[in-house]
Amino acid sequence: MNNSPIGIFDSGIGGLTVAREIMRQLPDESTVYFGDTARVPYGSKSRDTIISFSRQIMKFLMTKNVKAIVVACNTASAFALDTIAKETDIPVIGVIEPGAKAAADTTINKRIGVIATEGTIKSNTYPKVIKSIDPDIQVFSKACPLFVPLVEEGWQYDSVTYEIADRYLYDIMSYDIDTLVLGCTHYPLIRRTIQKVVGDKVTLVSPAYETAKELERILAGEDIRAHANKAEHHFYVSDSVERFRNFAGTILPCEIGPVECVNMEQYN
Amino acid sequence: MNNSPIGIFDSGIGGLTVAREIMRQLPDESTVYFGDTARVPYGSKSRDTIISFSRQIMKFLMTKNVKAIVVACNTASAFALDTIAKETDIPVIGVIEPGAKAAADTTINKRIGVIATEGTIKSNTYPKVIKSIDPDIQVFSKACPLFVPLVEEGWQYDSVTYEIADRYLYDIMSYDIDTLVLGCTHYPLIRRTIQKVVGDKVTLVSPAYETAKELERILAGEDIRAHANKAEHHFYVSDSVERFRNFAGTILPCEIGPVECVNMEQYN
Repeated sequence: MNNSPIGIFDSGIGGLTVAREIMRQLPDESTVYFGDTARVPYGSKSRDTIISFSRQIMKFLMTKNVKAIVVACNTASAFALDTIAKETDIPVIGVIEPGAKAAADTTINKRIGVIATEGTIKSNTYPKVIKSIDPDIQVFSKACPLFVPLVEEGWQYDSVTYEIADRYLYDIMSYDIDTLVLGCTHYPLIRRTIQKVVGDKVTLVSPAYETAKELERILAGEDIRAHANKAEHHFYVSDSVERFRNFAGTILPCEIGPVECVNMEQYN
Repeated sequence: MNNSPIGIFDSGIGGLTVAREIMRQLPDESTVYFGDTARVPYGSKSRDTIISFSRQIMKFLMTKNVKAIVVACNTASAFALDTIAKETDIPVIGVIEPGAKAAADTTINKRIGVIATEGTIKSNTYPKVIKSIDPDIQVFSKACPLFVPLVEEGWQYDSVTYEIADRYLYDIMSYDIDTLVLGCTHYPLIRRTIQKVVGDKVTLVSPAYETAKELERILAGEDIRAHANKAEHHFYVSDSVERFRNFAGTILPCEIGPVECVNMEQYN
C-alpha cells in the first residue's frame, strides 16, 4: 500500500488520453503528468534525442516521489523505455506492449494494421512485440505524420482530415486487416474519423485502456496500490501553460488545477 | 574586410531558403548554418522558450567566430531578435524587417496579407513594422499551422495542400489584398500552390531575398565583406543529421559536406 503518485509523461498533450484512462480505472491513484511542450513533437526525432529527453523527464518525476512511471507516448516507449527502465528501481511501463497484447487478443484473421509516428513505425517495435505473442500474425504499418498537427489544429472531424486519413490508410486497408492499432496517443482524438474511413468491420485498438489495466496489475503485484487516498492530480509542462490547460480541460474528467512550467535542462 | 563566416540559424530546415539567397547574392561569403531539429517547430511555442533557444544558438555560433548572425526564422525574429541583438557586438539581423519593407514597397492598393506561424502572427510584428513604414497600409494576418508539416511530409503540390491553402487564405483574400508576405521560411517551398490559390494579381513576397540584400548593405556599411575568399559552408543540427542532409540537398545550390550534431544544452 502506497499513496505516492503515478508519474505519467508524453511529448505534449497526447498522453492525456492515457492519463484519462488511468484516472477512470484507478480513481484512488494520484498522478503527476509531464508534457514536454517545449520540444514536442517526438515522432520525427531520433532515438538518441528521445532517450536523452526521456531520461531528463524521469529524473524530474523522481523528484515528485512517484512510485511508478507510465511512458504515455508511443515514440518514447519505442525508443527509450528499455534504457530508462534500467536506470530506476520503480516500475516503468510503456504503451506499446499493452497495445500489442490487446491487438493480438482482438484479431481473428491474424492481420493487424498499425498507424503511428514516423519514429514508432521505423523502430519496428509493434510488429516485434505482436509477433513475439503470436508469430502467425501479419502486421502492416503506416506512419501518419499529419495526424498530430491536424488534431492540434482542432480539425478532428474535418473533411480534409478524412481525405488525409483515407490516403494514409488506403494501402493498409488493401491487406484485409480486421484490427487497427492507434499507435500514437493523439490518434484516439480522431478515432471517429479513422473509424469512418476503415469501416465497421475493423476494430480500433487504443493502447490507453490496456495500459491502465497493465498498470493496475503491476501496482497490485508489487502491493503498492493507493488506499483510502483522496487522489490529487498535478500537471507540469516545459512550455505554454495556458495552451496546455485549455486542451487538458477538454480531455480530462477532473478539474485542472495549477499547471507549472519546468525547465528540463536542469535534470541532466 | 573580413573572411569570417556568416552565422545563420532556424528552427530546422526552413531557414535554408534564406541561406540559399545569401549564397546566391553573396557568393564570396562563408556560412555556418544551425538548424534546431531536436526542438523544431518554434511556431507554436512561447516567447520565453524561443528567446532561451535562440540565446543558446547565438552562443554556439559565436564559438564558430561568425562576423554577423542572420535569424532565418520568422518566429525567432519576432520573439528573440531584439533580446539577443543586445547581447553581442556583431550585427544580428532578422527576416521580418526586410520582408515588411519589401511588402510596403510592393503594394499599390495599400492592402497587404501576412501568413505565418501562430507565434509570428500573435507577436503582431509584421503589422507593427509595416505600419511604421507607412501608417496608411492595412495588414490582414492569418496563422497557417499546417503548412510546415505539409512541406515536411513532401506534399508541396498536393491537392490536399491546395484545399488547406484555399481554406486558410479565404478570409484574407476577401480583403482585396494585392501583396502577400510569406512570413515563415518554409512557405517559399509551397510558393506555387499558394500562388495558384491567390491568383496572378497578388504578388508574393518572400523575406529571404530582401534579407540577403539587407545583409549585404550591413556588411558593406561595417566594411566586413569577404574578399578573395573561397566560400565554405558548414552545417550543424541538434538532431537527425541524415534527414537534414537529404532535405538540404534538394534546396541548396552547393554541395552539402559533413553535417554535425550539436547538443545545445551545453550553451547555457
